[in-house]
Amino acid sequence: MAFDAIETPFGKTDKIVGGSATYVAYAASYFVKPVQQVSIVGYDFPQEEMDEMKRRGIQLEGVEIIPDKKSFFWSGKYHLDMNSRDTLVTDLNVLLDFNPKIPAAYQGAEFVMLGNLDPVIQKQVIEQLKPRPKLIVMDTMNFWMDIKMPELLETLQMVDVLLVNDSEARQLSGEFSIVKAAKKILTMGPKYLIIKKGEHGALLFHKNEVFFAPALPLEEVFDPTGAGDTFAGGFVGWLAKTNDISFTNMKTAIIVGSALASYCVEKFGPDRLKEISKADIDKRIQEFVDLVSFEIELG
Amino acid sequence: MAFDAIETPFGKTDKIVGGSATYVAYAASYFVKPVQQVSIVGYDFPQEEMDEMKRRGIQLEGVEIIPDKKSFFWSGKYHLDMNSRDTLVTDLNVLLDFNPKIPAAYQGAEFVMLGNLDPVIQKQVIEQLKPRPKLIVMDTMNFWMDIKMPELLETLQMVDVLLVNDSEARQLSGEFSIVKAAKKILTMGPKYLIIKKGEHGALLFHKNEVFFAPALPLEEVFDPTGAGDTFAGGFVGWLAKTNDISFTNMKTAIIVGSALASYCVEKFGPDRLKEISKADIDKRIQEFVDLVSFEIELG
Repeated sequence: MAFDAIETPFGKTDKIVGGSATYVAYAASYFVKPVQQVSIVGYDFPQEEMDEMKRRGIQLEGVEIIPDKKSFFWSGKYHLDMNSRDTLVTDLNVLLDFNPKIPAAYQGAEFVMLGNLDPVIQKQVIEQLKPRPKLIVMDTMNFWMDIKMPELLETLQMVDVLLVNDSEARQLSGEFSIVKAAKKILTMGPKYLIIKKGEHGALLFHKNEVFFAPALPLEEVFDPTGAGDTFAGGFVGWLAKTNDISFTNMKTAIIVGSALASYCVEKFGPDRLKEISKADIDKRIQEFVDLVSFEIELG
Repeated sequence: MAFDAIETPFGKTDKIVGGSATYVAYAASYFVKPVQQVSIVGYDFPQEEMDEMKRRGIQLEGVEIIPDKKSFFWSGKYHLDMNSRDTLVTDLNVLLDFNPKIPAAYQGAEFVMLGNLDPVIQKQVIEQLKPRPKLIVMDTMNFWMDIKMPELLETLQMVDVLLVNDSEARQLSGEFSIVKAAKKILTMGPKYLIIKKGEHGALLFHKNEVFFAPALPLEEVFDPTGAGDTFAGGFVGWLAKTNDISFTNMKTAIIVGSALASYCVEKFGPDRLKEISKADIDKRIQEFVDLVSFEIELG
């Protein structure tokens, strides 16, 4: 839970609410309650945002508030293609002290989503969870591969599903071919691997199976910030709601996550996520169905 | 119909048989006979290749043979990502004299595939066809947009389906967003637009409808030369076989074309295309079905 200041080819914001955990929680809250949040913020994080979260069934007992420090702040500027961006400012602030303690009330959680963070902290969270959750999903990024690869590899062995983008999958595996990269990563701990390709969709790998989910061809992507986290929140939220972690249901969960992410990018910050209804989500899921449906008789 | 010399990260060939029309014809011949070829070659084009074509129902009456000149020759080197390549040699040779005459026996053809070539020549071919074919499909490339845009725009007005890749769609329309680019191109003549995205699949646009066909995630792409032409040949071949140019059937045709293209890239040149059976094609089509199938109940 943090602040972002974002510039895209279409506009620019001052400091607004952001952060992986914010997007994940809002997305998941469409499907399951409670969502038990673990995060850290400073004195400056808006009380209204936390009230809004609580109204949506997001519990904040695991969110530490540091009274004399500021929340994490990131500022970035997207390039015209919206797939690449420059970081302008990273103020770690409270994140320097982040040493998450899982509240007793959270024990027994069955579905865990580890947002992108230091793999050492991700591991500490897993180790505190008793009993071991039914499904642990982990996000990470190239930054941790650059500076903490051994620690990342250790944490990887403890998770069920890994989320990375295509270049991160290549970096993690040392393989250029995405299929070879996926096969290798599936020997490193996770039983399921989701490779996100932005506007080109996402691939889900498990054993020898593969599923491809397209991205909706959108006329305009206004702000991609948080789209990956929203996808993850929708994905885990759907699995938790249905309490089914089969490959078949993960395919559905990816479509659900993609539908939510397609709304996220329509406005700056998590605002659009807070406006949409269940009917809006269903409408977009139907667009995915229509987008890839074809008929053919073989033989 | 031409010669290529190709270098990829996986290997290298001497001069081998290639050319858009070669790939298109071999691919289409899996679905429909006769395929009536129009092309130009020199004294050096192998008689065995032409015999093989005839065996597959490809008529060569429209293929001019210039006895004292060489066939078109292209040589190129692919980069590691296989999406970009450097042209090393382009010897136009017989192509300098290409002034296609449609044989009387070809008149009445219902499905026409115009391979990538000077738009002026593409237009001359269309103008010779009486009556106007049921469906005219056109391929083109950035090269013609750079040097013959007015002529290209004229030819565009005469065709039903345009095939381009994503950067060409942007160049042709002046729009960065693929969806906006597609909408604009659909006002320029073609009623259907296929945007090829290589390893990221292909999009079909028509009126307000859109269909997305993924590419199969392949472990290795050995040589992408001819994949686009093979796709086009499979696409048109399927439409001709089924004699159905509805949007619904075009979606199927795109999957069929993608299945053929996925074989094409497994070996240098058109060799792999000549080996495969109807069962192989069906097998790969089934992989496309499995790749994108998911189940969800809305509401």
